[in-house]
Amino acid sequence: MLTYTVGSSKQRQKVSTMEVEEKIQNLWQELRDLSLGNPPKVDHLRTPPTPLQFLRDYVNPNKPCLISAATHHWPALSLWPSTSYLWDTLSSTPVSLHLTPTGRADSLTPHPTSPSSLCFASAHVQTLPFEQALDRVLESDSKQVSYLQEQNDCFRAEYGALSRDCEEDIPWASEALGCRPEAVNLWIGNHFSETSFHKDHYENLYAVVTGEKHFLLLPPTDFHRMYVREYPAARYQYHQDTGEFTLELEDPIRVVPWSSVDPYPLHEEIQREFDKFPLYFDGPKPFEVTVKAGEMLYLPSMWFHHVRQSPDNSGLTIAINYWYDMRFDIKYAYFNFLQSIPHSPRKDPASCKVINLESSFSGSACNSGDESDITESLPNPNNVRDDSDGEMDELCYKPDCISGVSQLGIF
Amino acid sequence: MLTYTVGSSKQRQKVSTMEVEEKIQNLWQELRDLSLGNPPKVDHLRTPPTPLQFLRDYVNPNKPCLISAATHHWPALSLWPSTSYLWDTLSSTPVSLHLTPTGRADSLTPHPTSPSSLCFASAHVQTLPFEQALDRVLESDSKQVSYLQEQNDCFRAEYGALSRDCEEDIPWASEALGCRPEAVNLWIGNHFSETSFHKDHYENLYAVVTGEKHFLLLPPTDFHRMYVREYPAARYQYHQDTGEFTLELEDPIRVVPWSSVDPYPLHEEIQREFDKFPLYFDGPKPFEVTVKAGEMLYLPSMWFHHVRQSPDNSGLTIAINYWYDMRFDIKYAYFNFLQSIPHSPRKDPASCKVINLESSFSGSACNSGDESDITESLPNPNNVRDDSDGEMDELCYKPDCISGVSQLGIF
Repeated sequence: MLTYTVGSSKQRQKVSTMEVEEKIQNLWQELRDLSLGNPPKVDHLRTPPTPLQFLRDYVNPNKPCLISAATHHWPALSLWPSTSYLWDTLSSTPVSLHLTPTGRADSLTPHPTSPSSLCFASAHVQTLPFEQALDRVLESDSKQVSYLQEQNDCFRAEYGALSRDCEEDIPWASEALGCRPEAVNLWIGNHFSETSFHKDHYENLYAVVTGEKHFLLLPPTDFHRMYVREYPAARYQYHQDTGEFTLELEDPIRVVPWSSVDPYPLHEEIQREFDKFPLYFDGPKPFEVTVKAGEMLYLPSMWFHHVRQSPDNSGLTIAINYWYDMRFDIKYAYFNFLQSIPHSPRKDPASCKVINLESSFSGSACNSGDESDITESLPNPNNVRDDSDGEMDELCYKPDCISGVSQLGIF
Repeated sequence: MLTYTVGSSKQRQKVSTMEVEEKIQNLWQELRDLSLGNPPKVDHLRTPPTPLQFLRDYVNPNKPCLISAATHHWPALSLWPSTSYLWDTLSSTPVSLHLTPTGRADSLTPHPTSPSSLCFASAHVQTLPFEQALDRVLESDSKQVSYLQEQNDCFRAEYGALSRDCEEDIPWASEALGCRPEAVNLWIGNHFSETSFHKDHYENLYAVVTGEKHFLLLPPTDFHRMYVREYPAARYQYHQDTGEFTLELEDPIRVVPWSSVDPYPLHEEIQREFDKFPLYFDGPKPFEVTVKAGEMLYLPSMWFHHVRQSPDNSGLTIAINYWYDMRFDIKYAYFNFLQSIPHSPRKDPASCKVINLESSFSGSACNSGDESDITESLPNPNNVRDDSDGEMDELCYKPDCISGVSQLGIF
């Protein structure tokens, strides 16, 4: 074990390298104690903040908040839930439809030629007239999921016909940040779609128009808990004739750094996932926030986020987000420094048993017991992810983490 | 040499512990490249910023700026340079006078009983009627230096009679920060006084009324370069009868963490200081800013600062500063993490020779050569600190650091 020496000969201390890892873990907790709240909770503002309040209380400390009444004046809230309005307004406008077999685009999936490894899979993208594309979204099932999620400033490009139904920017955010949005994106999807953990180099104002979006959030300080690794990039190919998907590696090979953590592991994979990713599953619980129709989430730059959705009565979830350029300043420099420090926890399988769980996600309590008891004793049988029924799953987590206190196991 | 392992078995990298130290050094440079400027330069605003500008462009990125025309409406600017006005207004008001033999209060000095070690010495503090106290400031010499620097919100306490001559807060700062000042301090001193490197947990607006203040500034990211160590606390005792000082250790012993670096080492100590503190002397040059009468410095929270002063025609330097509470948020959490990581550079005396120097401090260029050439070949003989003549000294530094490029020697 290498020891560092610090200070003059009279003040020399021996500091073990294990303490560097401990310092990283202390950082997660200190941020919560100082600024984010413990247990984790996203502030809910009943009305939009002033530019100064927004900048001082949320952007500056890189802290999320949920905002009500920021979009209540938008015609979109009453018009867009009507599919006939969308059809009539956009009709045959060409739009980009994203298809996957699972609803998980930009996500890890078994490598096409080495199934014991993973690759990073992007969606098959197809340009269709909007009417057809919307039908495909509504017809999605567990074998074929369509999502209108082009992201590439698509609202101002493909969906210009809808522009009068909402604002081209968020005025108090533009004033606070001193700029207009870099991109505005429209998202039309269904409950099959799920976005895996990732972060964006933008300040994000995310407004839900109809349906609900369910976010899991973790701050940039928690970087090491996301097990970001490099994966070869691949793309789904959809074959119209057979209705089947294949997965094709990009050529030449391109690697994508991506988080390895699935916060909703399959029942049969829980213990294995707990063993592989102890920093995530043993650490402080993520922030959970549901953004309902008419609400807006401030998702700060560099925060890791995972997204699921609940549909409205017509089966759709529609949202629009405003990406503002972030400032690359001292917070970013600190993050890059943190990210550059290796952290390799030693695993202790004994610390990763699934025991009594309580989730705030669906309001259900899980019973104590070992893994074999779970499906029999739980009041909500959907304790783990089960995509086939579309029910919302409870967050799999360690009980001591519910309070936000870090239980880090043995490293 | 211990190695870390990161990633899955397919992605395992061996990362040496030396790289942690290298990452710390990269941080110093990245902050300058991203945000602070390279070469280092403090922005000069010709007029005060709006609250939003101040918050967005300086407080949020934790970045200093010099501001003109923020105090030009203060009666203090025309009234306080007159010692008779000060006498008449404050007359016999009791005030706290700080006395040291060297002008260096809150600074490291040889330990009273172990002279090869250092202790942290505070001033002798004496309460006197203002008239007498001001005389003592004006009568200071190289053996006995008086400074009115109580700091403890003294402007609102001891100097209340002057309150109508300036503002009780800085309005655009109060609005930006969402609070009023925690403390307002008055400083009346002379060119003998020098404040050693330290940092404060406040957002600081520092206004010079008469004379000049010369700051050296380094951002919080540069923590390791300051060689903060723990020193036993002592206090000067001034003996009226003999006019001599003694230095008394506090009892019980109290330790004070303090920066070990003197940016202006004595000529005969230069090489030794360079050897002891390579991270400072080999790293990026500090930010240098002179605050003139009528100007104000925004000194961001947690920035290390060293202060010297030039007097006005009556021999005084008068300043007032406004301390606002800082936010303990993600920047602070990151700083604490950084501070907790040990860094022990290996010394290479060969990299620490004094060679060609150029200083922006006095505008003079220094000649190349080894240490023995310095006093003979320099156009300005005051290349190193020489307290006896009161002349401003040139900053001792390494030439490659002038551009802000880090030249870190061998660690």
